Amino acid sequence: MERPYVIGLDLGGTNAVFGIVDRNANIVAQTSVKTQDYSTVEDFVDACMHSLNNIIDETGGIGNIYAMGIGAPNANYRKGTIEKAPNLVWAKGIVVPLAKMFSDRLGLKVAMTNDANAAALGEMIYGVAKGMRDFIVVTLGTGVGSGIVVDGNLLYGHDGFAGELGHVTMVRGDEGRLCGCGRKGCLEAYCSATGVARTAREFLQRDTRPSLLRNIDPNKIESYDVYKAAVQGDAIALEIFEFTGKMLGEACADFAAFSSPEAFVFFGGLTKAGDYLMKPIRESYEKHVMPIYKGKAKILVSTLDGAGAAVLGAAALGWSVEI
Amino acid sequence: MERPYVIGLDLGGTNAVFGIVDRNANIVAQTSVKTQDYSTVEDFVDACMHSLNNIIDETGGIGNIYAMGIGAPNANYRKGTIEKAPNLVWAKGIVVPLAKMFSDRLGLKVAMTNDANAAALGEMIYGVAKGMRDFIVVTLGTGVGSGIVVDGNLLYGHDGFAGELGHVTMVRGDEGRLCGCGRKGCLEAYCSATGVARTAREFLQRDTRPSLLRNIDPNKIESYDVYKAAVQGDAIALEIFEFTGKMLGEACADFAAFSSPEAFVFFGGLTKAGDYLMKPIRESYEKHVMPIYKGKAKILVSTLDGAGAAVLGAAALGWSVEI
Repeated sequence: MERPYVIGLDLGGTNAVFGIVDRNANIVAQTSVKTQDYSTVEDFVDACMHSLNNIIDETGGIGNIYAMGIGAPNANYRKGTIEKAPNLVWAKGIVVPLAKMFSDRLGLKVAMTNDANAAALGEMIYGVAKGMRDFIVVTLGTGVGSGIVVDGNLLYGHDGFAGELGHVTMVRGDEGRLCGCGRKGCLEAYCSATGVARTAREFLQRDTRPSLLRNIDPNKIESYDVYKAAVQGDAIALEIFEFTGKMLGEACADFAAFSSPEAFVFFGGLTKAGDYLMKPIRESYEKHVMPIYKGKAKILVSTLDGAGAAVLGAAALGWSVEI
Repeated sequence: MERPYVIGLDLGGTNAVFGIVDRNANIVAQTSVKTQDYSTVEDFVDACMHSLNNIIDETGGIGNIYAMGIGAPNANYRKGTIEKAPNLVWAKGIVVPLAKMFSDRLGLKVAMTNDANAAALGEMIYGVAKGMRDFIVVTLGTGVGSGIVVDGNLLYGHDGFAGELGHVTMVRGDEGRLCGCGRKGCLEAYCSATGVARTAREFLQRDTRPSLLRNIDPNKIESYDVYKAAVQGDAIALEIFEFTGKMLGEACADFAAFSSPEAFVFFGGLTKAGDYLMKPIRESYEKHVMPIYKGKAKILVSTLDGAGAAVLGAAALGWSVEI
């Protein structure tokens, strides 16, 4: 009999969320473990197995599970390792063979990829990119990540680290904003949630117009504050989204020249800004893209439920494993 | 018995060069037809078949030919058509089903792709990228073209038109140079042979230093003149290559964030400048690329013979056909 479920693990800096997922994107059981409560990966995996065994039993036992997929920061798909992840206490500065550890404990095949690639698989199998063979997922969260699908497969590149589109250079030279990667002018430094907050601080400083955002300590402004102000018609907040969307559209125009995708799928917290962000992205993309690509690519927002999306993405990776 | 040869056609604006090529990159017979001597594609194909039949007979007849590959401007791989090629008199503004026309006449399978993609196949099967599964060929000629290989396959994208890396935007906003595609600031407007000539005119104008290039009518300066001046130690000529190489290195740093290739292979007339161009490319690439990619990708120059490379690329496409 066909095994009806996979295990999906969304491994974040705060929570490790496990879901048992069927082929129709139903998360039939879920549990979680606090990622940071363990100082070694062995202790972390022990705690995970304890919680995980409960939901495996609830759903009919390990015989019902096809495989496991993990979406994690700094994951190396080729090696099944997490490499020097600064946000995971038990993986700081070291290489952790997490896929093998779970595989040994579960007796299942386990695949692991980075969060944005997992999101792309989730979109392809369960989401708005269902049936597409060429598309790009752009995740707009604390950083800007990407998962690139080419002819039905994730693009991994020579070393497994392809698809870091948050780190293409949008502002060249010294005037570019310093990025977390140590370079200047990266897309991520402008168009992540934290980039939007930086833009807010810049716009408020160079300008004397009144704005709802002036009621907030500039150092505490978050992208959600900008959204709330935009909803109330705040001119500066609207300009911040215009600026962000315009740059994302220009970046996507360059990405089109690379892989000519059927769609760009935006995913993550910032997309809650809806048309405040998506309208300038679409306009800027069509304005800047090369003539042969005009009017072709769709600019979409993920429809996967925010909370479950990362688990579904990891589950999709699980389904992609050959057993 | 295994068929030992393919036909490769390098279709350029001036000459259509046919080669009969074996599996070891030997062009065992060659012929050519003037592309512009015919006003309709039917007449052109008639003339081609006349010349081609001679070399097919010379090499033992059609029974020895496995398939045919064509590298051509504005070629659509998916459809086997040439679409509105401004440089081909018999294909201006129309769609020409050239692959099918040759296929009908020869009784062979015929595949067609654009010139830069053919160059990439040539490098993979016969050239410096032999054995590589992820690399990018950048062609530096009248324009800047690219062929992107991902996991052993050419990247075609949703519509067959992926890989126009000459048209990523390197200088944003209105100060970008006008490009032949109608947009501003494209890589091609700076780093093609014509881009290098434009840079020469700009540098000579903004500067009063003596230069060998001042002996030439500015409107007649070609990239080869810049090379000849550089060889003689001309400071402005050397700066022109520095500027060009620096930009190409920055562009490749962005391309790495996309597909993380094992190598970048430079191909075409400008590469004759050797280290005047390649050294700044390598330095700029390593300086600008994201830390996780540093020290990984090779920056190579094609070693395929200039004259035969395009035919070999087309031949490589012929070998990739499944019969």
